[in-house]
Amino acid sequence: MGENYDASVLDGFLAVAVDAAKSAGEIIRQGFYQTKHVEHKGQVDLVTETDKACEELIFNYLKKHYPCHKFIGEETSAAFGISELTDEPTWIVDPLDGTTNFVHGFPFVCVSIGLSIGKVPTVGVVYNPIINELFTGVLGQGAFLNGTPIKASSQNELVKALLVTEVRSLRMCGSLALNFCGIACGRLDLCYEIGFGGPWDVAAGAIIVREAGGHVFDPSGGDFDLMSQRAAASNSHLKDAFIRELNKSE
Amino acid sequence: MGENYDASVLDGFLAVAVDAAKSAGEIIRQGFYQTKHVEHKGQVDLVTETDKACEELIFNYLKKHYPCHKFIGEETSAAFGISELTDEPTWIVDPLDGTTNFVHGFPFVCVSIGLSIGKVPTVGVVYNPIINELFTGVLGQGAFLNGTPIKASSQNELVKALLVTEVRSLRMCGSLALNFCGIACGRLDLCYEIGFGGPWDVAAGAIIVREAGGHVFDPSGGDFDLMSQRAAASNSHLKDAFIRELNKSE
Repeated sequence: MGENYDASVLDGFLAVAVDAAKSAGEIIRQGFYQTKHVEHKGQVDLVTETDKACEELIFNYLKKHYPCHKFIGEETSAAFGISELTDEPTWIVDPLDGTTNFVHGFPFVCVSIGLSIGKVPTVGVVYNPIINELFTGVLGQGAFLNGTPIKASSQNELVKALLVTEVRSLRMCGSLALNFCGIACGRLDLCYEIGFGGPWDVAAGAIIVREAGGHVFDPSGGDFDLMSQRAAASNSHLKDAFIRELNKSE
Repeated sequence: MGENYDASVLDGFLAVAVDAAKSAGEIIRQGFYQTKHVEHKGQVDLVTETDKACEELIFNYLKKHYPCHKFIGEETSAAFGISELTDEPTWIVDPLDGTTNFVHGFPFVCVSIGLSIGKVPTVGVVYNPIINELFTGVLGQGAFLNGTPIKASSQNELVKALLVTEVRSLRMCGSLALNFCGIACGRLDLCYEIGFGGPWDVAAGAIIVREAGGHVFDPSGGDFDLMSQRAAASNSHLKDAFIRELNKSE
């Protein structure tokens, strides 16, 4: 099992996985900056192509180094069904995590390469090529961000904790000003918030959205009022449908 | 009103606001990389100091150039109450948007500087100094990201839209692998997801979290199973309380 491997062997696994992740990251980075410039069908193709090209590159590279290891990949599993996880050293790969973000140009996308030994996660590499963050971990050797040791937070009060989860097609990033900029550059399509801090949260974002061809309005559908602590923004196509949905939910 | 100003005058407002945002951004960037290394009370102080130092820097800079303009700032308003918005040119400033992100080292923080003329948002600058993104907009002149024109998305189907909103202390980023890394480096405290794609989403993240001193487990509180499409992660302090809350909500 993983703890029976020499540390230098595990280091070797990590080094190979990092190389594979960085090469795949280069492909993702190229696609990331192209995706806004192709039509919808082209975007779907670009995701599929990027996903497949990355998985192929990663598996070929790992297989060259470790011909006897087993492999589970998202793309391969989608095509041929998922293999059972055994005690054998098994590379488990998501060549492109965050495909919705990839299509929208929202900078949280990554390559994820894990090695399971005895069904225990033993080596892990997560690389975000857009903001150039490389997270690594090896069983018994600690975790690192771009080579610097990291540790989980020391927060011990639940009410002060920052929770993250996922709901399809919903993002929460913690900055209304940047959410508005997300609408302006097409990373996000719809945004609303009621009861935020004050006009300073939206004064700059409002003009940036409008100059990018988006709309800024009151969530009721009325005119945007800088001082009201109520704001919604959307692209030019979705405003009316969005207002109908917002009014239903109030 | 804004549309009565010569384009070159508005350009001048923008250039001054960009200078102010970049200088404040430098202060934010320094604090951002310090905040994890000070205790809780020190973190609160660091936020307050950074917020105040940035607002002071921005207002002094703007006042030097535009002594007759009016000013509304988050910090000043917190201290002295919010001034009424008039038709006069008014700079509306959030020196540090995303303070929770700032404290947690979650890279969505920004300076927001808006200029309202005739109560209409006329010039806007939003600068994220961590990932170095500068969004700008001027009434009638378009919007830009790092100098490149941006436009809102062309998505016209509500069901395919990416919505962003905010709930206190909740983040949704669209990548489970990166959420786990967020736990590992202390940017996030708690994470759970049920029914995600497959083991490739968590195989690397699981070892990175564990090596960073965090816990990975089944949301029920049982052992983490790589193949179950159910996963939770937390720092070492909050696991038990988190499991109790998760079980309540099921």
